[in-house]
Amino acid sequence: MCENEDMTYAGVGVNYDAMDPFKRDAQRAARETAGNINRLGFSEVGMSRGESAYLLERPDHYLAHVEEGLGTKNLVADAMYRLTGKSYYDQIAQDAVAMIANDMITLGALPLSMAMHLAVGDSDWFDDKKRCHDLIEGWKKACMLARCAWGGGETPTLKGVVVPGTIVLSGSAMGVVQPKGRLITANIQHDDAIVLIESSGIHANGLTMARKIADNLPNGYLTKLTDGRAYGETLLDPTHIYVALIEGCLDYGIDIHYTANITGHGWRKLMRATQPFAYIIERLPIQLPIFGFLQEHGPIDDMEAYGNFNMGAGFALYVSEADVEKVQGIARSLGLNSFYAGHIEKCETKKVIIKPKNIEYLGSTLGVR
Amino acid sequence: MCENEDMTYAGVGVNYDAMDPFKRDAQRAARETAGNINRLGFSEVGMSRGESAYLLERPDHYLAHVEEGLGTKNLVADAMYRLTGKSYYDQIAQDAVAMIANDMITLGALPLSMAMHLAVGDSDWFDDKKRCHDLIEGWKKACMLARCAWGGGETPTLKGVVVPGTIVLSGSAMGVVQPKGRLITANIQHDDAIVLIESSGIHANGLTMARKIADNLPNGYLTKLTDGRAYGETLLDPTHIYVALIEGCLDYGIDIHYTANITGHGWRKLMRATQPFAYIIERLPIQLPIFGFLQEHGPIDDMEAYGNFNMGAGFALYVSEADVEKVQGIARSLGLNSFYAGHIEKCETKKVIIKPKNIEYLGSTLGVR
Repeated sequence: MCENEDMTYAGVGVNYDAMDPFKRDAQRAARETAGNINRLGFSEVGMSRGESAYLLERPDHYLAHVEEGLGTKNLVADAMYRLTGKSYYDQIAQDAVAMIANDMITLGALPLSMAMHLAVGDSDWFDDKKRCHDLIEGWKKACMLARCAWGGGETPTLKGVVVPGTIVLSGSAMGVVQPKGRLITANIQHDDAIVLIESSGIHANGLTMARKIADNLPNGYLTKLTDGRAYGETLLDPTHIYVALIEGCLDYGIDIHYTANITGHGWRKLMRATQPFAYIIERLPIQLPIFGFLQEHGPIDDMEAYGNFNMGAGFALYVSEADVEKVQGIARSLGLNSFYAGHIEKCETKKVIIKPKNIEYLGSTLGVR
Repeated sequence: MCENEDMTYAGVGVNYDAMDPFKRDAQRAARETAGNINRLGFSEVGMSRGESAYLLERPDHYLAHVEEGLGTKNLVADAMYRLTGKSYYDQIAQDAVAMIANDMITLGALPLSMAMHLAVGDSDWFDDKKRCHDLIEGWKKACMLARCAWGGGETPTLKGVVVPGTIVLSGSAMGVVQPKGRLITANIQHDDAIVLIESSGIHANGLTMARKIADNLPNGYLTKLTDGRAYGETLLDPTHIYVALIEGCLDYGIDIHYTANITGHGWRKLMRATQPFAYIIERLPIQLPIFGFLQEHGPIDDMEAYGNFNMGAGFALYVSEADVEKVQGIARSLGLNSFYAGHIEKCETKKVIIKPKNIEYLGSTLGVR
């Protein structure tokens, strides 16, 4: 399964060349500030740089900080609002909160407070009371699902910066890992099992491609999928929030070796850990109609699709095979389908192998962590 | 000094009618999520809702969360970059960090980690290496001044949402108040002294007005002020970061009764606390050339100017008269001018009185907290 290749820097860790230079330079500069907080009795957890959440250490717990955003999914909601009269802003609010919360839990942190940043191009955006109401109710509901407090936010009007009629929806969260033993580090073992948890649909990544596909369809977002639902409606299915799942697993004492929130870079995200392993997928999750539709109408081949979309798997947990049933039981109790998808093998380079599709991604294709 | 008026809801606290409805509805919805974190041993500090930082309580400390942004000041930097070849992005990075950090310290919290959110309209924005370098170095330097760790961030490309060539620069911070006695609550006393700390210039508020003034000047941003510096250059003087000042005062044991970060709403922010008091200014700070220029070329009268700009006073501390000298000594040691500007009197309504200018602002004019 794991053929040896020449060992490369890309294969064993962060590939600074493939990372975009801005992120690389920013990470280097950011590291130089780490010592500032030692006077307050805090220290940074160096390994969390480049992970989905930034961690600070105290004697008996870790604090976590995440900054994230919705991307351009609001443009799909705007289009569907014009077509149907339903705003969908409750659903995209959940998407934004999910982006933040699902990043935070990857390291075992539970979100405490969630702030909303809503930038508009013109203050008349707020004149649509229905849309405002939906956004607020959706953000609140999502905070309930993420089991955190909605802790304020900011709503600037940025004329000349945000395109009028649109919004930039983003936010941030503080969280906590306590006790410290609940920290999820990259403790991946040879023969670990890969458990994939169902996604609700496309999440907040890959929307640019999805919007282009809509432009090329005679009926656009109103085109029906195989299940009879409209394309645009399906794109806007709100992202699952996996906080209860991770909290449940940790409460149960399951030793989670690593997790991946499958967003941008699709299943290539499975090899997010720096250590070199082969992630071998033997069974695929149930295909959601949206992904078949995207592949057909792009057209998008399997390599591109699994490398960019979540393809029905929104979150991955790596555990000992003995723990697979327990994880699946907790997922089931929360109404989430899960799949014992495959296993992990030691390897001299990082790679993801999707056997049913005969696809292999090398570590070098996941430059940006 | 304080004539009694009919007591109104607006005069004694949050004016929900004057607040914009979105913020009001969001605050109401947010409050309903507060209980979610009690299971983790945290509880929200209710009084911090509507303050500049959101607080969570632990047995021996408070955590603080701030979400803020730069506004549209980057458009001035963009214009000056075209005119002069200097990007000024190091300076606006400091403005953005200052907006976050100076909000956090108002309650006595010290920033721990600072995240950057940089949304662009087109990824070719990153092709300008000089501007990228300036932004990164400026953010790092500002984190040094704010004595916190730069803890990651997010750099989405939002085509169709952010106007190409521009950016939305915002961010968030986690912070801590420890020990708990360092929390700054609204403990304002009759006869308290008002100490104003110098600003560096216009900060990140009021830029829309400043840009309009530039449009009407024959030489635009290159128009000279009385001190010979260009208007645009002066507008971009980076905002002071007052973290060291507040930390110094708290370390010294000064009992700070309340503070105000003077940003939007200008000196009306002096009456930010919900309790009714009259804030009576008897002495004005040294006039910075930028504010005289703005007033002359607007034209902007004193009422409008002091009600919207910081007018040379970037931060206010309210302390007992006996502590004024100590605060001023600490400010001086940090290279900051300060002014014993006036005092506070009990009053049945909230108001700010600027005696040298014969101006009075009623509490009802500060609807949005």
